[in-house]
Amino acid sequence: MALLRRPSINSSVRLDPNMNRYTEEIVEAFQSIQDDICGQLELFDGKGIFKEDLWERREGGGGRTRILSDGNVIEKGGVNFSAVHGPISAQLANALKVDPGHFFASGVSIVLHPCNPHVPIIHMNIRYFETSSPDSSKDPVWWFGGGIDLTPHYIVEEDSRYFHRQLKTICDRHHHSFYNEFKLWADDYFYIKHREETRGIGGIFFDKLDHKRELNKDQLFDFVCDVGRGFAPIYKEIAGRHKHKSFTDQEKQWQLLRRGRYVEFNLVYDRGTKFGLETGGRIESILMSLPEYARWTYDFKPEENSREAQTLDLLKKGIDWHH
Amino acid sequence: MALLRRPSINSSVRLDPNMNRYTEEIVEAFQSIQDDICGQLELFDGKGIFKEDLWERREGGGGRTRILSDGNVIEKGGVNFSAVHGPISAQLANALKVDPGHFFASGVSIVLHPCNPHVPIIHMNIRYFETSSPDSSKDPVWWFGGGIDLTPHYIVEEDSRYFHRQLKTICDRHHHSFYNEFKLWADDYFYIKHREETRGIGGIFFDKLDHKRELNKDQLFDFVCDVGRGFAPIYKEIAGRHKHKSFTDQEKQWQLLRRGRYVEFNLVYDRGTKFGLETGGRIESILMSLPEYARWTYDFKPEENSREAQTLDLLKKGIDWHH
Repeated sequence: MALLRRPSINSSVRLDPNMNRYTEEIVEAFQSIQDDICGQLELFDGKGIFKEDLWERREGGGGRTRILSDGNVIEKGGVNFSAVHGPISAQLANALKVDPGHFFASGVSIVLHPCNPHVPIIHMNIRYFETSSPDSSKDPVWWFGGGIDLTPHYIVEEDSRYFHRQLKTICDRHHHSFYNEFKLWADDYFYIKHREETRGIGGIFFDKLDHKRELNKDQLFDFVCDVGRGFAPIYKEIAGRHKHKSFTDQEKQWQLLRRGRYVEFNLVYDRGTKFGLETGGRIESILMSLPEYARWTYDFKPEENSREAQTLDLLKKGIDWHH
Repeated sequence: MALLRRPSINSSVRLDPNMNRYTEEIVEAFQSIQDDICGQLELFDGKGIFKEDLWERREGGGGRTRILSDGNVIEKGGVNFSAVHGPISAQLANALKVDPGHFFASGVSIVLHPCNPHVPIIHMNIRYFETSSPDSSKDPVWWFGGGIDLTPHYIVEEDSRYFHRQLKTICDRHHHSFYNEFKLWADDYFYIKHREETRGIGGIFFDKLDHKRELNKDQLFDFVCDVGRGFAPIYKEIAGRHKHKSFTDQEKQWQLLRRGRYVEFNLVYDRGTKFGLETGGRIESILMSLPEYARWTYDFKPEENSREAQTLDLLKKGIDWHH
């Protein structure tokens, strides 16, 4: 994979003529969301600047990986855009349960690891996938997916309520059942099975939103863009509440342990990560989600009734956060 | 899973009457290897003492997890023994390609993460597995597996030669083709595919050694015990060469980055870890292999011709180390 430094990736996304008119619009919208988020985060951080790596995929397409390191608020964060296409490999066909042919996939993926343990880790992703089959009698296959979830090192109920209410507001603008459905989906997805712990306080997760939904393609596209645009204001509000708080070394160590769990989730369960590793994606872009530093202490148990223990008690499915 | 503190696990390994006479012998030999290694490592470290957790598995058997933290040489190390048995679940049958019935499995697993970046990480495992089928007309299924591999943060050719020669000497005592075969197997197994890097300088790896081998069961049992007993002297020799060396902060940071790779291997590829996580093993015993601290820096590249770059150049398959 060649790394290029250029102002924009547009020219490298050689659109497949078999693809429908959406691909170009999606690529533009997703890039503009990436630009907007990077701008807002740089202003908010006040020190960190995104470093951009443009890359190309040999089989088609490429991406813009943007990493902010050693900021005032963000210790390590990635805001990545990619748009890739090409023949569907046997592995891809099997993983995604699609027929042979060509595929196009584009998305924006974000993970931010803060310096301060009182500021939560946040993740956001929006993505689009479509295939074109040589058999023109078949219906075109396409879908949208995505989600936002929050991983506080210390759970603060007011933040959790705020976070879920904002997500509900975004969802409600598009479909009355989205929040409830996608909140449940996030509880199930962002779950570290071997620890019997959720990754954090959840959020929303959705996948394979397609023509079988009540909304049409334009409306689903609007929804995922709305999720993407909702991300920065929500993060800035919550991070802004805590970024100036002082913290002890013990709190910093707890943050490192919780980051260890984040690593476990991403390497063992996260579908995007596994998919990327298995299909030869750009490793440094995929693994930007891992924190700068993490820790594993054998059989660590926080003191009873400590804030650490209270946080652990809340790492479970089915909590109704938005009331 | 209940944690018990007792001098020995023997009484909790309720042997299945269907098992053959080997199980008891193996349990005793493996426990004695664990005892011997822990004793040697404590003496060698001079500060760290193993903390023991005895645990029981609800469906049958249990283990002795022993962890040494914050030693003079060893920052975090685990020397674990387990002996578990019970009905073969559908998942187990599928993963191991065995028929329904009962299984018995026992092993010793070791990972040592040193304080000093000039001392390598080392791993050793020996294991035995057998099944008994309700259908007495079927041949009994049993096998031995195991291996030792070394992960230097800085590769030293003399150490690598010493390490591989020692392994070859052990192998040669049992079968003239073992070293060549198991060295190749280790190159393939201890490989971080998404990084296109071996985990370290390899070693030996072997699995499913059974009646189809030229050696009989007694002889294979002797071989794995010899591997187990070979571990401590080899580690003490290599660690002893470097444990007093001074190191810079830059070298310490490089160690943290290499540990990040170790985490990637163990969570993404290691069969024992995956198997343990999927089948509800004792998590803290399985994940003792993860280092106390690890690091991921986006797209880190060592300076050309630095010792770090030289080490990266040697992280590949097919190097003939023992000459």
